[in-house]
Amino acid sequence: MSDTVTFRVIGTIHSNHVAAEDTPIQPAFARGCLGWVELRPEFAEGLRDLEGFSHVYLLYHLHRAGPPRLSVKPFLQDVERGVFATRAPCRPNAIGLSIVELLGREDAILRLDGVDVLDGTPLLDIKPYVARFDRVETTRNGWQDDVDDATAQARGRRGFRPPLHVPGARS
Amino acid sequence: MSDTVTFRVIGTIHSNHVAAEDTPIQPAFARGCLGWVELRPEFAEGLRDLEGFSHVYLLYHLHRAGPPRLSVKPFLQDVERGVFATRAPCRPNAIGLSIVELLGREDAILRLDGVDVLDGTPLLDIKPYVARFDRVETTRNGWQDDVDDATAQARGRRGFRPPLHVPGARS
Repeated sequence: MSDTVTFRVIGTIHSNHVAAEDTPIQPAFARGCLGWVELRPEFAEGLRDLEGFSHVYLLYHLHRAGPPRLSVKPFLQDVERGVFATRAPCRPNAIGLSIVELLGREDAILRLDGVDVLDGTPLLDIKPYVARFDRVETTRNGWQDDVDDATAQARGRRGFRPPLHVPGARS
Repeated sequence: MSDTVTFRVIGTIHSNHVAAEDTPIQPAFARGCLGWVELRPEFAEGLRDLEGFSHVYLLYHLHRAGPPRLSVKPFLQDVERGVFATRAPCRPNAIGLSIVELLGREDAILRLDGVDVLDGTPLLDIKPYVARFDRVETTRNGWQDDVDDATAQARGRRGFRPPLHVPGARS
């Protein structure tokens, strides 16, 4: 088996987040953070029918993540955890995963809400969020169960930015 | 910006699925399909605390996907759709995403249920599934809303396999 896998950048995620330390840590804390995806035109045909879904996954390269660490303090708690038990960017493979709200599509542009991603982030894949596959009944949420919602909101939201002009948006 | 991104294989996903056409299409249709992840030992430290979560995301290379297509018929419906509006493997970047149940961990081995992944699949990342981030209230599920649950189960389950011996499993 090959030891590496190479993917191509299929587009760019735009937002008004320019500094990692001011970017909400998850879409759940980024309500009102608008942004958009600009897909490379050669892939635009693949977006057909996506606008029927209210939410989509973005998979992307966390291109400004620091060097990988196996033990990290997550943003929501001051306790060292194994990196795979966190969503921290400094993972062995810096692959980001965000579930964002899809507001609309114009050709190769997707208008989004809940964007917790730095401006200029290289996009790798888009998948529809499907309730029957993806809304899982968890029984345990690990150390996250020890963080109350108010603390999570306060620490997760970080530098919330006012709305951004999105191409084609009706205001 | 670079046009490609290279990731390293951090482990292997094991299952008793050996043929793509007999593999359930999603973990939601793979209840009882046991499997395990074997992480490369140099990354094992990163698994600490993961066992507190009942479900985890696996991100992996769909290493046996066919050539990318922008328009595909999804497994659950006989209508051509843009590939990004489906979870089909033949995407521009063959990145797979599965939410599996974590039954237990022994060092660098994760015992799993709901495995919809081919045996020998190269693993790229593991993230905890966190209800407060990931259980999203969708308002629209696109063409999936036109597929009733009975049809989805019948078409999604495909070649269900009897349980597999998993290392360290208590029977």
